[in-house]
Amino acid sequence: MQVQHYEETPSQPVQMEGAHDCQVRWLIGHDQGAPNFAMRQFEVAPGGFTPKHHHPYEHEVFVLEGEGEVYEGDEARPLTPGTVVFVKPDEVHQFRNTGDKPLKFICLVPHIDAC
Amino acid sequence: MQVQHYEETPSQPVQMEGAHDCQVRWLIGHDQGAPNFAMRQFEVAPGGFTPKHHHPYEHEVFVLEGEGEVYEGDEARPLTPGTVVFVKPDEVHQFRNTGDKPLKFICLVPHIDAC
Repeated sequence: MQVQHYEETPSQPVQMEGAHDCQVRWLIGHDQGAPNFAMRQFEVAPGGFTPKHHHPYEHEVFVLEGEGEVYEGDEARPLTPGTVVFVKPDEVHQFRNTGDKPLKFICLVPHIDAC
Repeated sequence: MQVQHYEETPSQPVQMEGAHDCQVRWLIGHDQGAPNFAMRQFEVAPGGFTPKHHHPYEHEVFVLEGEGEVYEGDEARPLTPGTVVFVKPDEVHQFRNTGDKPLKFICLVPHIDAC
């Protein structure tokens, strides 16, 4: 069993093309022996965003803090603490911080070689 | 894409033997077309607990609100908002609310027939 506060895991910049002012912590993944899927925590600064992209795997997201929008293609849907987002495989999506505090959410993905 | 607040999903009592004052919401699962794993949200009332048990699949947990403990066998580890717990397959575990407010956490599992 691994028990820790998420802030104990160092964050790193999201280097993916199209990302802006976005950090990620890999909380549970291959390194912890997770057999099937990974838990990451994202922190998007005010004005920041994740890449607008799609990929063949799903996202399961829970918003922790902050205010923002998730784009489903060109349609924006609001995000507040407690919002749950299921992004199906191959759906175009983007998370944007529209508030004045960090937008924090967790995002789980099946094990993949890169994401 | 599915976007909703977690409280829009009705909660139901955890019926498993050994559970006490514990509710669950299935937020993302087979019904939403999730291909690999499910997101559930648990709410344990003060004094309540989940079953002390083990099973051949993992849990990936993020604590949202409240205070409690997770037992790894007979050893208790504290839970506060932001605590991340990775329960490996076959580890004996139990979540207990030791505070005076609901203990809320999300818990993800790979697709299984029953849990």
